[in-house]
Amino acid sequence: MSIISNEAIARLHHHLADDMQRVNQVTLNHIQSKVELVQKVAQHLLCSGGKRLRPLLTIACSRLFEDQPGYAVHLAAAVEVIHSATLLHDDVIDESDLRRGQPTANVLWGNVPSILVGDFLFSKAFQLMIEAKNQRVLEVLSQASTRITEGEVLQLTLSSDLNLSFDHYLEIVGAKTASLFAAACQVGGMIVNMPAELEDDLYQFGYNLGIAFQIVDDILDYSLSREQSGKPVGNDFCEGKVTLPVLLICQSPEFLPAWEEWFNKPTRSQDEFKTAQKLLLENETLEKCYEYAQPFVDQAIQHLLKMPAGFVRDSLGCLIQTE
Amino acid sequence: MSIISNEAIARLHHHLADDMQRVNQVTLNHIQSKVELVQKVAQHLLCSGGKRLRPLLTIACSRLFEDQPGYAVHLAAAVEVIHSATLLHDDVIDESDLRRGQPTANVLWGNVPSILVGDFLFSKAFQLMIEAKNQRVLEVLSQASTRITEGEVLQLTLSSDLNLSFDHYLEIVGAKTASLFAAACQVGGMIVNMPAELEDDLYQFGYNLGIAFQIVDDILDYSLSREQSGKPVGNDFCEGKVTLPVLLICQSPEFLPAWEEWFNKPTRSQDEFKTAQKLLLENETLEKCYEYAQPFVDQAIQHLLKMPAGFVRDSLGCLIQTE
Repeated sequence: MSIISNEAIARLHHHLADDMQRVNQVTLNHIQSKVELVQKVAQHLLCSGGKRLRPLLTIACSRLFEDQPGYAVHLAAAVEVIHSATLLHDDVIDESDLRRGQPTANVLWGNVPSILVGDFLFSKAFQLMIEAKNQRVLEVLSQASTRITEGEVLQLTLSSDLNLSFDHYLEIVGAKTASLFAAACQVGGMIVNMPAELEDDLYQFGYNLGIAFQIVDDILDYSLSREQSGKPVGNDFCEGKVTLPVLLICQSPEFLPAWEEWFNKPTRSQDEFKTAQKLLLENETLEKCYEYAQPFVDQAIQHLLKMPAGFVRDSLGCLIQTE
Repeated sequence: MSIISNEAIARLHHHLADDMQRVNQVTLNHIQSKVELVQKVAQHLLCSGGKRLRPLLTIACSRLFEDQPGYAVHLAAAVEVIHSATLLHDDVIDESDLRRGQPTANVLWGNVPSILVGDFLFSKAFQLMIEAKNQRVLEVLSQASTRITEGEVLQLTLSSDLNLSFDHYLEIVGAKTASLFAAACQVGGMIVNMPAELEDDLYQFGYNLGIAFQIVDDILDYSLSREQSGKPVGNDFCEGKVTLPVLLICQSPEFLPAWEEWFNKPTRSQDEFKTAQKLLLENETLEKCYEYAQPFVDQAIQHLLKMPAGFVRDSLGCLIQTE
């Protein structure tokens, strides 16, 4: 079973390579600073690879309607820069030491530069989006930016609670992840004069895709395959975050006590993670997570099908469709 | 000797009370969040008093040209919210435990909510300024917001260095403090259709006022009178920040070794602060700081005098003029 196909992402990147090259260029031009440390920290993160899925969505959604992306390039850059700003702050908050296989900015330069350069990137993202000179686009993106921070605080207050409801889980994921996916898609269409009646469909496509993406991220953090491929797993468990796999297994009263014991402690060991992982495996919990994600995938596809047919729509469909 | 008269600020607040009441209302309406902790942290800071000098400048500068402030209210609110966001992050960075006589948000709720609610306020400030629907205003304010963060990083990298040049000192102060003062004044005029040829004068008025304001802030941190009035002093010294009084006294080779000894240590004691304060007093260093500020005051006044005469211009003049 698979949702969010890396192969489809690569295919879309290949097809939109020229546009994405321009997005990179505009991003690098805009994060220039004569303050050396600002420049270093910002570049460290923005040049460290990553899937660049969010800006890719903005470009792809503009390409559903136009041959030239125009200011979608700036909006795609803005979306990636907002995302980078949140990553800098997340790494401080979660005390992470590794991202994309490299030491995090907070490890290399300390928490303070990470906080300040995160703020710098937020401001730069606004400077980027202003260049598109489109009032509604500004409203959509600044609203998304606000919701991300609300989602993060909601996660902070709620997500160590094993009694978290599915509604609250979706509220957190919707705010902290899906809102930026939704805005990234919506503004890609808006900036190239997509018919107004499709705006909400593009938003809904991005929103549901974002929820599915976050669920997959929750799953991968407990998966054996990610471990085997050399990527780190167990971060959510170690940080005591109640993600979807935890919510689902704690539905069974027999497993709840073990998770309560783990999650009521300030820290959790690698051995405990292995036990937790085994428990999820034996109970096919990760498969249940994929099932839980399915309606969001279906919704995303349904909204996508309202868009003009063609290579880009097909590729966006492949990106999320269960094989 | 006095620059930045609290009496003149109070008089201007009184004269513009209705407008400032609307600024408060718009601010409170916009920082609403259904996430309880976001609401609490944001309100804690924004309802804690403070001089509200920056939004007052925006309103006053709009009132130089129009009887109704219109969207200057939203811009004034945006300016105050940007300032509040930087304060939340500053208090985390400086590990401050007291602001405006109350425990800081980082003491009450921890660093993580302060970082996230700072981000929330940055986003909300952009939502506020977008409402004014004025492209140039957005450019000015987002540019100021970027420069603040650059100034903070510059301060971080340079300001523990006793060999800091006056040029670097002014670059830091210009970016972290004066740029927002300048933007606050400029957009107040811009949003009410001030004649274009006055735009730069209003900016320069704010910029020079901002430099003078920061110099006074540097002075007050070492002053006896602030101590006597119950306000905390010595923060800059304890944090090892090279501010103007330090720069000026270290010009004399006889005093440099003492400051080197203090500032090369990780921490500084209250007794050491008393000694430092005595040294500055005996050498009339604080008076020299006021002299250093004088050209900026003169510049501010000179640009202000280009504005239409009247009560508001007079009050802005009293605010900064040396008595």
